[in-house]
Amino acid sequence: MKRPPHVEQIGGLPSKVSIYEVGPRDGLQNEAAIVPVEIKADFVRRLVSAGLRTVEVTSFVHPRWVPQLADAEQLIDTLDLSIAPRMPVLVPNARGLDRALDKGLRDVAIFASATETFAQRNLNRSLDDQFAMFEAVVSRAREHGLWVRGYVSMCFGDPWEGDVSIAQVVNVAKRLLDMGCDELSLGDTIGVATPGHVEALLHELFAGGTSSGQVAVHFHDTYGQALANALTALRLGVTTIDSSAGGLGGCPYAESATGNLATEDLVWQLHGLGIETGVDLEALVATSVWMAEQIGKPPVSRVVNALAG
Amino acid sequence: MKRPPHVEQIGGLPSKVSIYEVGPRDGLQNEAAIVPVEIKADFVRRLVSAGLRTVEVTSFVHPRWVPQLADAEQLIDTLDLSIAPRMPVLVPNARGLDRALDKGLRDVAIFASATETFAQRNLNRSLDDQFAMFEAVVSRAREHGLWVRGYVSMCFGDPWEGDVSIAQVVNVAKRLLDMGCDELSLGDTIGVATPGHVEALLHELFAGGTSSGQVAVHFHDTYGQALANALTALRLGVTTIDSSAGGLGGCPYAESATGNLATEDLVWQLHGLGIETGVDLEALVATSVWMAEQIGKPPVSRVVNALAG
Repeated sequence: MKRPPHVEQIGGLPSKVSIYEVGPRDGLQNEAAIVPVEIKADFVRRLVSAGLRTVEVTSFVHPRWVPQLADAEQLIDTLDLSIAPRMPVLVPNARGLDRALDKGLRDVAIFASATETFAQRNLNRSLDDQFAMFEAVVSRAREHGLWVRGYVSMCFGDPWEGDVSIAQVVNVAKRLLDMGCDELSLGDTIGVATPGHVEALLHELFAGGTSSGQVAVHFHDTYGQALANALTALRLGVTTIDSSAGGLGGCPYAESATGNLATEDLVWQLHGLGIETGVDLEALVATSVWMAEQIGKPPVSRVVNALAG
Repeated sequence: MKRPPHVEQIGGLPSKVSIYEVGPRDGLQNEAAIVPVEIKADFVRRLVSAGLRTVEVTSFVHPRWVPQLADAEQLIDTLDLSIAPRMPVLVPNARGLDRALDKGLRDVAIFASATETFAQRNLNRSLDDQFAMFEAVVSRAREHGLWVRGYVSMCFGDPWEGDVSIAQVVNVAKRLLDMGCDELSLGDTIGVATPGHVEALLHELFAGGTSSGQVAVHFHDTYGQALANALTALRLGVTTIDSSAGGLGGCPYAESATGNLATEDLVWQLHGLGIETGVDLEALVATSVWMAEQIGKPPVSRVVNALAG
């Protein structure tokens, strides 16, 4: 492999960052290809071997909505879930949680909306009504001792509503924490955020008593801003960042092939800053190159393209 | 056009940034296509119409080395150079300066190396010997009242030497300023820099008495780091940033299609931060889409792809 980045630290940044790998779920869910379950299992195993300690493996969504993940149970049966400290599965609703409990999972994630329109479109209920549904899911998950992540989508803009107010996002975030979510993931689902917006939202959230340890950030690179936004979150104390190996997964709500922040691009930055991730970049790049061959589409990650050329 | 970015400022950042547009020179120099001179002239005019106030138009390099820019004199004859405040031309050596003076140009740029190996390969002389050549060029340019920019290439890494010491870059930078350059452009020619490295270099340079107003930054997006690095430079007071419309120009020293930071991606971030650029993003995107058609290659800019889809 070519050289790793030159290391120069910036004062005040965390010494370690947890990368929350979303490639197998958020990535594959938004790719056209239907990937065989054995390949998915290999993908997850390779990600864990490359040092990723949290890998979201699939979603217990109805196969009608996401045919790419119709093999969720089969994938869970194929995998040894003890290989990584945390291997969450998305549970969109009570039925999804039933399936997670049936499989004896320890970690789940719910997917809430920060906006009225996206709640209607994605959950078929109002912004307010989503809380009743999630309240039941989260409390039951916690009764069973599960760790629960709450995604908040459309935090920085919505394709139908445009601007989304910071106060509204903070309100949704607090309601999810109040109902018992262990961690939130603040999502820039359409990739429009810029660093000042990230700073303003985190300031407001932390001013209201939420701690930086409860918050992850989930940036999309649709407008090329994901890494600058991640750096901004790091400066404000956030230590969990979502990303997708190879940049897998287009943006479902913009006419662009570019969606999730690529894990390799994030790792390059973090390692250059002297921040520990536990990730073996060379092994991760090889995994993304291999996965790109499986789905028949070149990786969008800049680092993968630079290092694998 | 779709929505502009939501605006949230970050304290301490400049209120205005000068974008130094390098697409017609650095961009087209590194694209395989040979573009007709009339198209180049249209490209420059469209960039200026879109609000770019500094556009580097071409290079008076020997056509044997850069056939893409063999029409430099013709392009200058075709253009009205009074349409923008500054329209520099690269002059690689004394002969290049002769050509610039013949054409009555007001603004020129020289291209120095921060490393021994690149000086040998690009200039065919030692790191030290480059100064003698540039000294003569710069002093003659200044006698004629020209504004002179000094590029410093390979500031953050070199494909042959690997790490480049900050002390060495600072030394080269100071020698160029001492010989009379009005502005330096610190180049991450292979795109490997991360934000801590940018901060460390700028700190060291400013600690030695160079002012932020004398320094521009030139980042490549080969590893996806360009915008995070630009944000870091802004935080340290830099107010001139180089970029290339549409991300035109691959990286000549890495096996990657991605080179220059795209002007649109930079403008999205700056406008999101409430920083004035004078650029009409919609007109700029249209220009890059049009230019991509001329060279028969899709734009690499994330913003162009998101907005023009």
